[in-house]
Amino acid sequence: MSEPMFSATDHLMMARALRLAERGAYTTRPNPMVGCVMVQGEEVVGEGFHARAGEPHAEVFALQAAGERAKGATAYVTLEPCAHVGKTGPCADALIAAGVSRVVAAMRDPFPQVNGAGFEKLQAAGIVVEHGLMEAQARALNRGWLSRIERGRPWLRVKLATSLDGRSAMASGESKWISGEASRLDVHRWRARAGAILTGAGTVLMDDPSLTVRFDDDTAFEQPLRVVLDPGLATIARGHVRDGDAPTLYVHAPDAKPPRGIDAQTAAAPVHEGRFDLAAVLQLLAARNINEVQVEAGATLAGAFLAAGLVDEILLYVAPVLLGDRARPLFDGLHIDEMTQRLHMTIVESRRIGEDVRLLLQPRGEA
Amino acid sequence: MSEPMFSATDHLMMARALRLAERGAYTTRPNPMVGCVMVQGEEVVGEGFHARAGEPHAEVFALQAAGERAKGATAYVTLEPCAHVGKTGPCADALIAAGVSRVVAAMRDPFPQVNGAGFEKLQAAGIVVEHGLMEAQARALNRGWLSRIERGRPWLRVKLATSLDGRSAMASGESKWISGEASRLDVHRWRARAGAILTGAGTVLMDDPSLTVRFDDDTAFEQPLRVVLDPGLATIARGHVRDGDAPTLYVHAPDAKPPRGIDAQTAAAPVHEGRFDLAAVLQLLAARNINEVQVEAGATLAGAFLAAGLVDEILLYVAPVLLGDRARPLFDGLHIDEMTQRLHMTIVESRRIGEDVRLLLQPRGEA
Repeated sequence: MSEPMFSATDHLMMARALRLAERGAYTTRPNPMVGCVMVQGEEVVGEGFHARAGEPHAEVFALQAAGERAKGATAYVTLEPCAHVGKTGPCADALIAAGVSRVVAAMRDPFPQVNGAGFEKLQAAGIVVEHGLMEAQARALNRGWLSRIERGRPWLRVKLATSLDGRSAMASGESKWISGEASRLDVHRWRARAGAILTGAGTVLMDDPSLTVRFDDDTAFEQPLRVVLDPGLATIARGHVRDGDAPTLYVHAPDAKPPRGIDAQTAAAPVHEGRFDLAAVLQLLAARNINEVQVEAGATLAGAFLAAGLVDEILLYVAPVLLGDRARPLFDGLHIDEMTQRLHMTIVESRRIGEDVRLLLQPRGEA
Repeated sequence: MSEPMFSATDHLMMARALRLAERGAYTTRPNPMVGCVMVQGEEVVGEGFHARAGEPHAEVFALQAAGERAKGATAYVTLEPCAHVGKTGPCADALIAAGVSRVVAAMRDPFPQVNGAGFEKLQAAGIVVEHGLMEAQARALNRGWLSRIERGRPWLRVKLATSLDGRSAMASGESKWISGEASRLDVHRWRARAGAILTGAGTVLMDDPSLTVRFDDDTAFEQPLRVVLDPGLATIARGHVRDGDAPTLYVHAPDAKPPRGIDAQTAAAPVHEGRFDLAAVLQLLAARNINEVQVEAGATLAGAFLAAGLVDEILLYVAPVLLGDRARPLFDGLHIDEMTQRLHMTIVESRRIGEDVRLLLQPRGEA
């Protein structure tokens, strides 16, 4: 493959494919989101996205929609078409059979059973194959899935609400309603993207959150797994985190014995000096096919993930209130004494959400 | 005057007049910023703005530019034309003499010598007068001047740079370079709008700031007055705050004696229980024709203005760094123990400035 030059139409169509892919954000996991647009000249003749694991891939829907007009078309796909027989037939074969003349992919599929094999199969059939168009956007879209495949751990997002003066709760622990209603609704969309919502036993005891996705419309979604880090399983019979239709997993210390007759999942994770090995907890979740974890916890657990270097992004709702210097800090346990030790982030996105500002931040120098 | 209905053209022209007015932001004080656009049909035939106190008003420049075409024109002015003989002749007379047929003003001039007299004079001459078009924007533009005229105190803006976790300095006091370079340049534009930059003796000792406006281009501006709150005049012979071309005023306790032979201005303000009466300090500055004060100080003085209810807006540069919970808070001395006591603000504007996010905030329920 030579260094491809992509046209304005190429960019337009790939952007469309990426938007289509994102329509699977709440339902495709543990699979990646994929979108596909079939184009003749500048005319879209078919499109599709991967909605659910076990159901057809994006290319299949797009080929079905295009019918005879797939012959000689360019297929824009946000991920390399699969070449292996999984739950559905290989998409590379379907594209070849339909007579597609060119395939433009945003990125190679790092999944071991694909990883270039799709491109090779297409090229061997005489199809022009180009990739790398809007790759950064495609990688950002599937950052959870890529993290699990490439790093063996889920993408970790810490969701926090803060006052202007960096406080997440009053000294008493009172923390409800720092952010506005629009932000609280917005959180549900981010939860729905995640495979797991993780919290600590302290938050269960103090705030008793449900940690479920609740939409006020009929948007389709899968409830994420709720994960409670609870070394001694002190909270296993408590709270809203057991209500609703979402499953719950308690992660406990190796010496804690899960009680009988509780219909919750449990898993042991190593504990060092009284604290969970958080990297091991994430590996445990990756082994359960969790792509993205959203941490909704207090300053202690959020600070521990940050101090361990395991935070991939922070979703920060900044509410225009001041809580004063007696209130609780946003992160506990960051041992920073000099300006040179400060943690640098990058603002990936800033946006008004109702009365608040939402910042999406990533540690600098990391993905 | 009946309830006027303004057309799209009216809005367009007033928006243009407001943008013109703002060109005087760094130079017109203590006068208000005013812009004027003369229009025939939909054609702009002349425009002007008030650049400096003592120089002609916006209307005069616009009439000069329009020449004969002022006859029968509509004049859009961001402020009621003056009717009194000040340093320049009354603009109402000039508009009448030029044969303008309609005057649209954004707002009435609350200055006691105008306050409707300009409108009356124009109407008496048979000119159609309408006002209230984009009044909120016009008031926001001149919020400093309006504050001084209407409330007898300057508009108070507190400028702060904060980390994501609400810290303005390390525990050691080290505070330089929390925000990025773009934000530090941006601060100079806000300084240039202000009539005074106010700080405390502690900041002079700790950070030794210059508090001058420094532009890297040839933008015209007047250096604001530097004001140091220093009860005992301990810092009067110290620091960069005495360098440069800007004047400096030391506000001291009544019992402090200004030393002889120091070429700085001094003024006494009342002190109660060891703390300045900040309302009295602001009155003192209003008496010196200061429209806008920008506070660039530490957490103690910023917190004291806030606790006194004297903060009109907060200019907050949020840098994407974490400084940890040992660092200094953004505001000291806010005695908030319960969520219901929190201080609510409104985000007037949020904007990316280089790597940072800049928030302009106003206390809720206030101007």
